Amino acid sequence: MKITVIGLGLIGGSMAIDLRAKGLASSIEGVDNNPAHGKLAVELGLVDKFAPLEEAVKNADVVIVSIPVNAIQTFLPGLLDIIESKTVVIDTGSTKSAICKSVTGHPKRNQFVAAHQIAGTENSGPSAAFAGLFVGKTNIVCEKSKSSETALLKAQQLFDALGLNTIFMEAEEHDKHVAYVSHLSHVSSFLLGQTVLDIEKDEKNIFNLAGSGFASTVRLAKSSPEMWAPIFEQNSEYLSQALLEYIMHLQRFHYHLMKRDTKELLSTMKKANEIRRILK
Amino acid sequence: MKITVIGLGLIGGSMAIDLRAKGLASSIEGVDNNPAHGKLAVELGLVDKFAPLEEAVKNADVVIVSIPVNAIQTFLPGLLDIIESKTVVIDTGSTKSAICKSVTGHPKRNQFVAAHQIAGTENSGPSAAFAGLFVGKTNIVCEKSKSSETALLKAQQLFDALGLNTIFMEAEEHDKHVAYVSHLSHVSSFLLGQTVLDIEKDEKNIFNLAGSGFASTVRLAKSSPEMWAPIFEQNSEYLSQALLEYIMHLQRFHYHLMKRDTKELLSTMKKANEIRRILK
Repeated sequence: MKITVIGLGLIGGSMAIDLRAKGLASSIEGVDNNPAHGKLAVELGLVDKFAPLEEAVKNADVVIVSIPVNAIQTFLPGLLDIIESKTVVIDTGSTKSAICKSVTGHPKRNQFVAAHQIAGTENSGPSAAFAGLFVGKTNIVCEKSKSSETALLKAQQLFDALGLNTIFMEAEEHDKHVAYVSHLSHVSSFLLGQTVLDIEKDEKNIFNLAGSGFASTVRLAKSSPEMWAPIFEQNSEYLSQALLEYIMHLQRFHYHLMKRDTKELLSTMKKANEIRRILK
Repeated sequence: MKITVIGLGLIGGSMAIDLRAKGLASSIEGVDNNPAHGKLAVELGLVDKFAPLEEAVKNADVVIVSIPVNAIQTFLPGLLDIIESKTVVIDTGSTKSAICKSVTGHPKRNQFVAAHQIAGTENSGPSAAFAGLFVGKTNIVCEKSKSSETALLKAQQLFDALGLNTIFMEAEEHDKHVAYVSHLSHVSSFLLGQTVLDIEKDEKNIFNLAGSGFASTVRLAKSSPEMWAPIFEQNSEYLSQALLEYIMHLQRFHYHLMKRDTKELLSTMKKANEIRRILK
């Protein structure tokens, strides 16, 4: 299979590593807005060649689009315009409704598989890519009925090679769920980071006191703003719901704290402990 | 050294393991309100003997008090009453002002070293204890001037054996700093857990979509409510400040999200990225 990766960052780069290792890719070409990333991706052996878009997608069996979600939305229709009939396009965006809408009615819509792999780290760029990122992770494919059987089969080969467990969901349902279990975590972590950095201006050496609990809770605050701002904007409706609920819970906790209502504090925390049921 | 551990949970139990391994403890006796925990601690080899308080503290060189902070506050004055002149008492509480106040003016105040080791996990009880928990972690000693030289030296031997890096701080300063870098993280995580569990009632299978980012951010929501409620209450003044700042930042973010103000969203996240400077 000739595979083309558009966007040579953590996600695209890690896919390239494993698709080559599993023998699925006979050749991999890379496309990136940033020539330095293209050069680095070749040096790191992620891709065989850094090429201009038209050249890279020529004769490609699969094109992976792993760029920020706003870029996917604007870029995808034009990409479908230029691909050959055998080519399957798969995206990796953390939102699905806006991306799917951007190609609704496109004559080549059925060559596109809308996907989101729940995998990543707080790092970005080609040097953040690593083998095995997707093993055992969940992959959500949306608007399955709008992709052709052939496209779905080819995409499934690729998902299997990466070790992903694929499930199917409508785009709106996907966006609502990830607002809670992914996007809200990022917002809570970014603003926890900001709150503590703010107080640090007055209180020197506060970070001597930071333990592994703080490090874990604030880890996502290291994530790429350029990648996350478009995700938050595309999913603003559901993220807003999630955020308002979170703020309401925080305010209620604050109220019980001020009232010294131990019973309510305990009951809230005991309910939250139920998260053990879900996360090992 | 004869060491007595009051409270045979994660902290007390992990201290016992390492103090024995390092050869500092010639014998370790354990005290706990819960007989099942006492029995388990003996079975696990954390302590040599589960004993009643009066018997266990008799002839002890060091008594470690590793129980919830409200229990430390009420228990500590009576403990000082009954100890011998050679005995040093060290606590492990995550708050320091209320605990220090509880023994201000006590005739044996100088036999007490007020300490807080920034170490732990989301697990609790004797079976959560493990070797090496304290290695390389920060230990804060408060009201240093109120402890005798002898008591500080003996405590330092113990902190060194555990691999802790000890720093000194006033109790109020300690409580303010940990409100931000520890207590607020716990609150943010507990309520993130609650928010997502709430929506799960209507949206089944939402947790299929939970990735490692969510797991990391919500990890502390598994923590013991019985241990954390008293910490939040004793530190309610500073925690309230921290919580209001956090809520304000979340609300401002929400406002910018609704206004589609990409510039502000990016600028907030870029500021939060600075957390990389502090956390490797």
